[in-house]
Amino acid sequence: MLDRPTPYLLVDPDVLSANVQAMARFARDRGLLLRPHAKTHKTPEIARLQLAAGATGLTVATVSEAEAFAAAGVTDLFLAYPLWVDPARGARLRALTDRVAVQVGIDSVEGARALAAQVPGCSVMVEVDSGQHRSGVQPSEAGVLAECAVRTGLDVHGVFSFPGHSYAPGIAAEVAGQESAALRAAVGSLAEHGIEARVVSGGSTPSASEVDSDVLTEMRPGVYVFNDAQQWELGTAGPEGISLVCVATVVSHSGGKVVLDAGSKALGADRQVWATGYGRLPDHPDARITLQGEHHAVVAWDGSPRPEIGSRVRVVPNHVCIAVNLHDELVTTDGQVWTVTARGANT
Amino acid sequence: MLDRPTPYLLVDPDVLSANVQAMARFARDRGLLLRPHAKTHKTPEIARLQLAAGATGLTVATVSEAEAFAAAGVTDLFLAYPLWVDPARGARLRALTDRVAVQVGIDSVEGARALAAQVPGCSVMVEVDSGQHRSGVQPSEAGVLAECAVRTGLDVHGVFSFPGHSYAPGIAAEVAGQESAALRAAVGSLAEHGIEARVVSGGSTPSASEVDSDVLTEMRPGVYVFNDAQQWELGTAGPEGISLVCVATVVSHSGGKVVLDAGSKALGADRQVWATGYGRLPDHPDARITLQGEHHAVVAWDGSPRPEIGSRVRVVPNHVCIAVNLHDELVTTDGQVWTVTARGANT
Repeated sequence: MLDRPTPYLLVDPDVLSANVQAMARFARDRGLLLRPHAKTHKTPEIARLQLAAGATGLTVATVSEAEAFAAAGVTDLFLAYPLWVDPARGARLRALTDRVAVQVGIDSVEGARALAAQVPGCSVMVEVDSGQHRSGVQPSEAGVLAECAVRTGLDVHGVFSFPGHSYAPGIAAEVAGQESAALRAAVGSLAEHGIEARVVSGGSTPSASEVDSDVLTEMRPGVYVFNDAQQWELGTAGPEGISLVCVATVVSHSGGKVVLDAGSKALGADRQVWATGYGRLPDHPDARITLQGEHHAVVAWDGSPRPEIGSRVRVVPNHVCIAVNLHDELVTTDGQVWTVTARGANT
Repeated sequence: MLDRPTPYLLVDPDVLSANVQAMARFARDRGLLLRPHAKTHKTPEIARLQLAAGATGLTVATVSEAEAFAAAGVTDLFLAYPLWVDPARGARLRALTDRVAVQVGIDSVEGARALAAQVPGCSVMVEVDSGQHRSGVQPSEAGVLAECAVRTGLDVHGVFSFPGHSYAPGIAAEVAGQESAALRAAVGSLAEHGIEARVVSGGSTPSASEVDSDVLTEMRPGVYVFNDAQQWELGTAGPEGISLVCVATVVSHSGGKVVLDAGSKALGADRQVWATGYGRLPDHPDARITLQGEHHAVVAWDGSPRPEIGSRVRVVPNHVCIAVNLHDELVTTDGQVWTVTARGANT
């Protein structure tokens, strides 16, 4: 490991590239467009890898993420979020649409009208709730919203969903089925209103392998480029498929445990109820991070000899999107330093 | 609220100042030094408020936080963390100790020796585990470590503890008592080895009101400047004592709920088992954030009419230290913009 102050994020570019290629191939084999969610990496170098492998464009969550990737040369961006477009955000969106292809998510008449007032003729995608119950309309309501959008002059490309409830053990196929059914119903709802859904977009990393290419035309996984402890524990990826780790230093043996300098400000604090700890150690799969502080990870060690105080240990974050957003740079095992350009791009 | 893109962090400087003054008065009345933990705010303007109110210096967690506050003119810094000091970190620490007063935490012989090799004569504080079981030696072992530190030429100032297990309902007095007992025992352990603990430092925000001034000479609360939903739910502060909120926009009414654009990348994902949600709404105390995404907060609304899509809502983060570290700036209600200088300062 590099002689860089810990904690820092280290990327294996070979594993990263293999992950990018594998998902591109998977989509291509099924006749699906791939539009990866760039919120995971926020990094132009990785965006370029994805596009070079055949991605049709990128997905982002915010206007400022779109601005960062447009500045880096990405020309096709889907803001998969029900943006509220006030005049200030409208001015920024217009500046974007003047330069690159932009689609924006809508899930309400109010949101569609505000967008249309600011960005006349904007391309939109109707968000459908496929079971996560976060944002999105019910599938049967998609047509009404799409028709309203068309009347305000927006250009409806299709429908999309994010099946976030796929983040639970043993549920990927069931959730992919729910998403497929919801999107199929939404396509039908649009058709009843005389609107063709040219794009039917969905998918998460856990549900990607179960994607229904009879219904979807596009998939938007994000985490797959790096994978993380959640994907490992869900069985979506093995430790050999994880391309990003946090390098941490052993700072204490307090209480017979191993205490690392990678806490919630380096790894994030995400912990699903089924997670076995606050991240995992790929070189010590039986060890568990049982307690987390902002700068501490307390590890119940496995049976092997404890690493000495001062030695370095690799930690896989639970949720890599959150970990990356806490760092300004990603370092690669072959010595590159990539700026996390869209870190903190929340607006 | 200001016409700034959401989500952003908004500070009420009057409430902030009142919190700073109240804790300063509390410490002064008990004859205690106050050394606030600056990891909470990471902001020079707030550090200056604390020092102007009588703080003896600041506490930080990392060398890079110390560097940020030293650059901002703070002259007395305690790194309350069992640093591993390799040559690179040693060079940075020596540069700091040339300019400002620095104390460093130790909790192992290995750590003390590494520090002494890099920063001869460095001032140190022995960390004691008072019951959180994160880092720190057992109280009875403090003297052995202190003696070892003295032998390596380090200057032992005293002992410290962080009673992080105070973050649970109804437990503040019990935890403060445990900390007091642990620190008293550690002082005795040092005395058995002929070493006087001139500084006995402890305290967290939840346990601050229960501090034992017969044992402690110094307290190090951090969160009290802002307070947060955790302090609200623990009863440490009422909503009127919260000086920082995240301003969010209603982006959706999906499923009859209120969906805000403040997710885990704006608020953090910390959620203790006893927390009622992913943050609180001070203007709607009966509402609950039941689901969080990276850019979504799904709110089960109270009985009042739902705020319209596009309107703005104030959200109190669960754990303010994490929220602040996600933002580059704090905006104040009187129009100041403060840079979060030490954001991301993890090394």
